Amino acid sequence: MNNILFDDLYSEATNTMEHSFIREILKVTKSVEGIISFAGGLPHPDSFPREKLSELFSEVILSEGSEALQYGASDGDKIFKDIIKNFEEVPYLNDDELMITVGSTNGIYYFTRTLIDPGDIILCEAPSFPGSITSMEACGARLVGIEMDELGMRPDLLEEKLEELTSKNAPVKFIYVIPEFHNPTGRTMDLQRRRDIIKVATKYRLPILEDQPYRELRFSGERVMTLWEIARTEFNDPKLVTIAKSFSKILGPGLRLGFASGPPETINHMVKWAQKVNVSPDCLTQRVTARYIERGYMRSHIKKIIDLYKPKKEAMMDSLEKYMPEGAKWTNPDGGMFIWVTFDESIDTDKLFEKAIKNKVAFIPGAKFYPKGTGKKNEIRLNFSYPDTEMIEEGIKRLAQLL
Amino acid sequence: MNNILFDDLYSEATNTMEHSFIREILKVTKSVEGIISFAGGLPHPDSFPREKLSELFSEVILSEGSEALQYGASDGDKIFKDIIKNFEEVPYLNDDELMITVGSTNGIYYFTRTLIDPGDIILCEAPSFPGSITSMEACGARLVGIEMDELGMRPDLLEEKLEELTSKNAPVKFIYVIPEFHNPTGRTMDLQRRRDIIKVATKYRLPILEDQPYRELRFSGERVMTLWEIARTEFNDPKLVTIAKSFSKILGPGLRLGFASGPPETINHMVKWAQKVNVSPDCLTQRVTARYIERGYMRSHIKKIIDLYKPKKEAMMDSLEKYMPEGAKWTNPDGGMFIWVTFDESIDTDKLFEKAIKNKVAFIPGAKFYPKGTGKKNEIRLNFSYPDTEMIEEGIKRLAQLL
Repeated sequence: MNNILFDDLYSEATNTMEHSFIREILKVTKSVEGIISFAGGLPHPDSFPREKLSELFSEVILSEGSEALQYGASDGDKIFKDIIKNFEEVPYLNDDELMITVGSTNGIYYFTRTLIDPGDIILCEAPSFPGSITSMEACGARLVGIEMDELGMRPDLLEEKLEELTSKNAPVKFIYVIPEFHNPTGRTMDLQRRRDIIKVATKYRLPILEDQPYRELRFSGERVMTLWEIARTEFNDPKLVTIAKSFSKILGPGLRLGFASGPPETINHMVKWAQKVNVSPDCLTQRVTARYIERGYMRSHIKKIIDLYKPKKEAMMDSLEKYMPEGAKWTNPDGGMFIWVTFDESIDTDKLFEKAIKNKVAFIPGAKFYPKGTGKKNEIRLNFSYPDTEMIEEGIKRLAQLL
Repeated sequence: MNNILFDDLYSEATNTMEHSFIREILKVTKSVEGIISFAGGLPHPDSFPREKLSELFSEVILSEGSEALQYGASDGDKIFKDIIKNFEEVPYLNDDELMITVGSTNGIYYFTRTLIDPGDIILCEAPSFPGSITSMEACGARLVGIEMDELGMRPDLLEEKLEELTSKNAPVKFIYVIPEFHNPTGRTMDLQRRRDIIKVATKYRLPILEDQPYRELRFSGERVMTLWEIARTEFNDPKLVTIAKSFSKILGPGLRLGFASGPPETINHMVKWAQKVNVSPDCLTQRVTARYIERGYMRSHIKKIIDLYKPKKEAMMDSLEKYMPEGAKWTNPDGGMFIWVTFDESIDTDKLFEKAIKNKVAFIPGAKFYPKGTGKKNEIRLNFSYPDTEMIEEGIKRLAQLL
């Protein structure tokens, strides 16, 4: 009997979907011995609070395991939600404005699935985070990138593009921004920029999806209100912004835990998707994280991570200054995990990548962060959270020698 | 400034999606004090191996936390996959034929998303598990139910329906079956029935999705090969069947852990969806479960669960025999968590449900388990895993008094 071939049975969305090319790059870099990699976006393992988590998992299973190992609500554990509201200093938030997700990409997927029909348009920063972009494209979205300046997405260009799109009745569905320690550029929107983006969104009646995975990792400068907060307070518009946050960078990404907050109607739809996709997030991990925050461990732990990453960032800044050639520029992030380097326009960073691998140093070429076919060739993203501080100078030196 | 209303921005798939009505029923039953509920599908908390899990979570975080708390592969932890292959006695299985999922519903969602374009058809048992059906419908699938007999889906009716659909060029994509301790009926396909379903699938060149969440919970009778095994061995066709399994009923559903195995192309596509939806399953939970199995705890633990559930099932069988009126029939499952009762056709179980709630006993009306609009009115599903043994007789007595 012939084996059945099913190639013609796959869905349209599946056939047009790509594997993540960043994952492919990471596979390449992992296979090279002695490589210094600035390519990934991994937290440093020293940032995982292993002692406390070890104690709490053990304790919670014994004391609350009947509940924490049982099926739980699709919108998340009520106890965890209450503790998040306190931790985020929004105790007034209603339960139906908040849901727990399996990491923040999961929240971004639910939000996109809730709004996007195939062919619909999302406006995002150019460059932006490919993990989100491919997740959105898998839902059939067309991504339109808006150029950035040092303060993030440019509101004038956003308005110009929206004017153009709406005049053609194009199906624009929402605006996606990473306003803080932006991935890949490390840039942060100031308060005025956030207000300006909100004004444009309001004018064109478009919801905003605010991605905030790095917010707690601020090394310098003053904390700025989220777009979510600004819309609620200054604009009295609690429905404009849905925010996605993550525990990946402050507890450990292996735990797959995040949350999303937005208007009740949207969250309700996202929860309906959660029922169908995952039933619920991991209930045990939720309860453990709840107890971790409740006992006051989180704030001091975040301080520890900042103390771990800040010297790494400074080491990278110093090394860039010391080794990079004339004409190269780089961002100076106030937090997060990434620095964005722009070279002279003659430099093709896809070709540089091949040379760098041979020279045992890795980064991600900038073109990978732009919607299809719109990328610039002379940019790269450098990660400073994962490599050891003493290797950072050596890595930047190796890279500079190739320029 | 007016708040923005986004109702017109939601996607087609979102607007047409329903909340799970079983979840709604469970909410009602939970709010009634002193109720004896046969409605849910929950494992008993005594089936959670709390001592061992408490030890292992603590230990794994300390000894392997650098890896287990870090980002992991979208197809699952390599160590866990190897241990599953041994536990399932399929050491020959290739890595690309196996992926870890966030519970088995998650695997069913990925499989469906991989194959289904809106309007495509899935053939399933009637009745079937609403958790899967609503997940499939959310992907745009149209479910066509095939009547069952005591041995599960009837192959003659499956063939008849396929003949009808293919003659009209209807876009049929796959066959979904729960062959063992079927939810909701408790029925199990024997070996010949499994072969017959495979033959029809092969004739019409259709993949099979085999849902096996209860397989380990067998109280009586001989173990039968899965359709997945039969297709691979007897039919020499390793691509025909994709199987979804779960740790929810043998470790704890709060851990959200399952796996799927099928042809490499299909698994590859499912993993691409996993990247976009969840990035990966919980890495810590995967590693802990790996160590749990590796140390040999699983087999003896499963025996313990069987010893817990078998007397409950027997108590329910005895009580049905003792209290149910003439004309009522029920299944006698060899395992799993459910018994299916068929009353005289004059009985409307939606109405019976209202009366039962007032009498402090709950079940799920059978109509909820059929594809939209095709349900029968005189059937109910009873769960025996969650209620305490001594309450089972009292609950069945309360129910019988209403008939």
